[in-house]
Amino acid sequence: MKSINPNISRRQSRKVDLEQLKKGILQSNKTLLAQAITLAESSRSEDIALKRELLDWAGAHAKPSYRIGITGVPGAGKSTLIEALGLQLVNEHRVAVLAIDPSSQKTAGSILGDKTRMIELGRHPRAFIRPSPAGNTLGGVASRTREAIALCEAAGFNIILIETVGVGQSEVSVKQMVDFFLLVLIAGAGDELQGMKRGIVEMADFILINKADGDNKEKATIARSDYNRAISLFPMPASGIKPKVKTCSALNGDGLQEAWKHVETYFQDIIASSFFASQRHEQAVEWMRESINSQLLELFYHKPEINQTLQEFTVAVKNGDMHPLTASNKLLKHFLES
Amino acid sequence: MKSINPNISRRQSRKVDLEQLKKGILQSNKTLLAQAITLAESSRSEDIALKRELLDWAGAHAKPSYRIGITGVPGAGKSTLIEALGLQLVNEHRVAVLAIDPSSQKTAGSILGDKTRMIELGRHPRAFIRPSPAGNTLGGVASRTREAIALCEAAGFNIILIETVGVGQSEVSVKQMVDFFLLVLIAGAGDELQGMKRGIVEMADFILINKADGDNKEKATIARSDYNRAISLFPMPASGIKPKVKTCSALNGDGLQEAWKHVETYFQDIIASSFFASQRHEQAVEWMRESINSQLLELFYHKPEINQTLQEFTVAVKNGDMHPLTASNKLLKHFLES
Repeated sequence: MKSINPNISRRQSRKVDLEQLKKGILQSNKTLLAQAITLAESSRSEDIALKRELLDWAGAHAKPSYRIGITGVPGAGKSTLIEALGLQLVNEHRVAVLAIDPSSQKTAGSILGDKTRMIELGRHPRAFIRPSPAGNTLGGVASRTREAIALCEAAGFNIILIETVGVGQSEVSVKQMVDFFLLVLIAGAGDELQGMKRGIVEMADFILINKADGDNKEKATIARSDYNRAISLFPMPASGIKPKVKTCSALNGDGLQEAWKHVETYFQDIIASSFFASQRHEQAVEWMRESINSQLLELFYHKPEINQTLQEFTVAVKNGDMHPLTASNKLLKHFLES
Repeated sequence: MKSINPNISRRQSRKVDLEQLKKGILQSNKTLLAQAITLAESSRSEDIALKRELLDWAGAHAKPSYRIGITGVPGAGKSTLIEALGLQLVNEHRVAVLAIDPSSQKTAGSILGDKTRMIELGRHPRAFIRPSPAGNTLGGVASRTREAIALCEAAGFNIILIETVGVGQSEVSVKQMVDFFLLVLIAGAGDELQGMKRGIVEMADFILINKADGDNKEKATIARSDYNRAISLFPMPASGIKPKVKTCSALNGDGLQEAWKHVETYFQDIIASSFFASQRHEQAVEWMRESINSQLLELFYHKPEINQTLQEFTVAVKNGDMHPLTASNKLLKHFLES
């Protein structure tokens, strides 16, 4: 027999789900981890309290990890590289891949769109792949990605790879949530062709010239020298470690082990110098701010009393019957009084 | 004799200021307009109610205007162009120039930094120049710029020029607050040198190749053809008007009158097609959202009870004693209860 009060019934059944989610996460259950991330991405009013509880719990249960940002324009072979690297790492580690795709204003698109990618890695029990959160989530993609990181860390994934498209919009925010920022380039394409701005190259802790195979090998070596020269002019990064440029081939695996060895050495060095901890702590403050801001927006936009008025005012503003500043002022007053 | 209650005294004296500000704005008094914008940019708790009242009033008193975004990297001669164009326009119009400078993460800088620019235009009684709002204002530069637009429009400035640096960060948000987007380029510099991304070129309603003077004239004409060819491949803008490419020289004034004539024709056309109104209405909804969001942040961060706890939690998060998600959750609960 069903409960008489449907709200209590639903809340109770949800409560059980949450405990199941937590248990599943602690057991590195990929299906339940995926459900937990979906809950964290939810903007439904009824999910807010639950997701906050889940995230609070995840924060307290996060385990140590390497957070690595990977960027490069489409065509640089990032996915092939991540799959090849991931398959190499799953022997010793649990690898989570999170993708960020700031779908452009004009052409909405998704990194993991029509092509099904990283199939082999995705199937591996010690790997977890998660596409980009929807672009219209309140509080923004950065906030949602950080929450997915916390959940993956609670699930014991100790290598978190965060992939971006490299068009400049999301790289700055990803840089602020990772310990290490890897830039994947290819030889032959000029900077302008790769859509790379100096700023992105400047943020890199490590540059990999991919597709150094076959006829392309020599060109990749030349590109390596070029980038080495270019970055020699950049100021020393806060880590105190000069970025390196290496070549590799995600296709045949050349250079991937050496590349990962470099990453490991980097982490050992920054942990020893305590830059790892200090950078994480700085980033944590930013994380707190982002989380506050996105929660504030949720609070406002999911208040039923606000929602009704907001819809009416949106129509009035859209018809030119109300100035946007008048509408926002009235709505804020309404929010404060309710 | 001073009032016994200093709060009442200050509030009262402030009230008088607000009435003075409103009166000054309606009289196009540049000093009082500047003070009003400073009030709108203020993040001091005691200014919030006042500035909201001012902006609400400004929204109701905004007069018709052309809102024009002008972008191009440093060196394209934007300032010289704006000064030359502005001096030409002040005979028939009131011209306000607002500058946006998204000071980069690494090197903080200001468009109107050490160099004093647009001196002649700034002195003109029918021109008003305002540098970029401080980058750390809550709710972001876009929100502050929109408020400055509303105040300038209330003051009867009917041509609002919004200048950006053209490095990609703020162009998208400026595009969303203007009727017309002008891109200033120079010949000879490759796209990569000008730091221009295709996306910015694609947003332009009009491209001006500046510095078409002396030895540079021929190069400018070639660049004009190049850009004409490039944009011929772009999809038709929402306005239904194919962007034009023209050359000009801000230095000797060549082409400026023709350029402005083109702008005027553009406005006549979009007003006739009612694209002007429909674009403004779409933008107004976005404006309302931005204003709500920045007011929510103000509300939270200026609550005295929150401020104290926020400072303590920031220290705890920074020391690694508290997870950022735990801190943000506790703060939000605190906010809801207070």
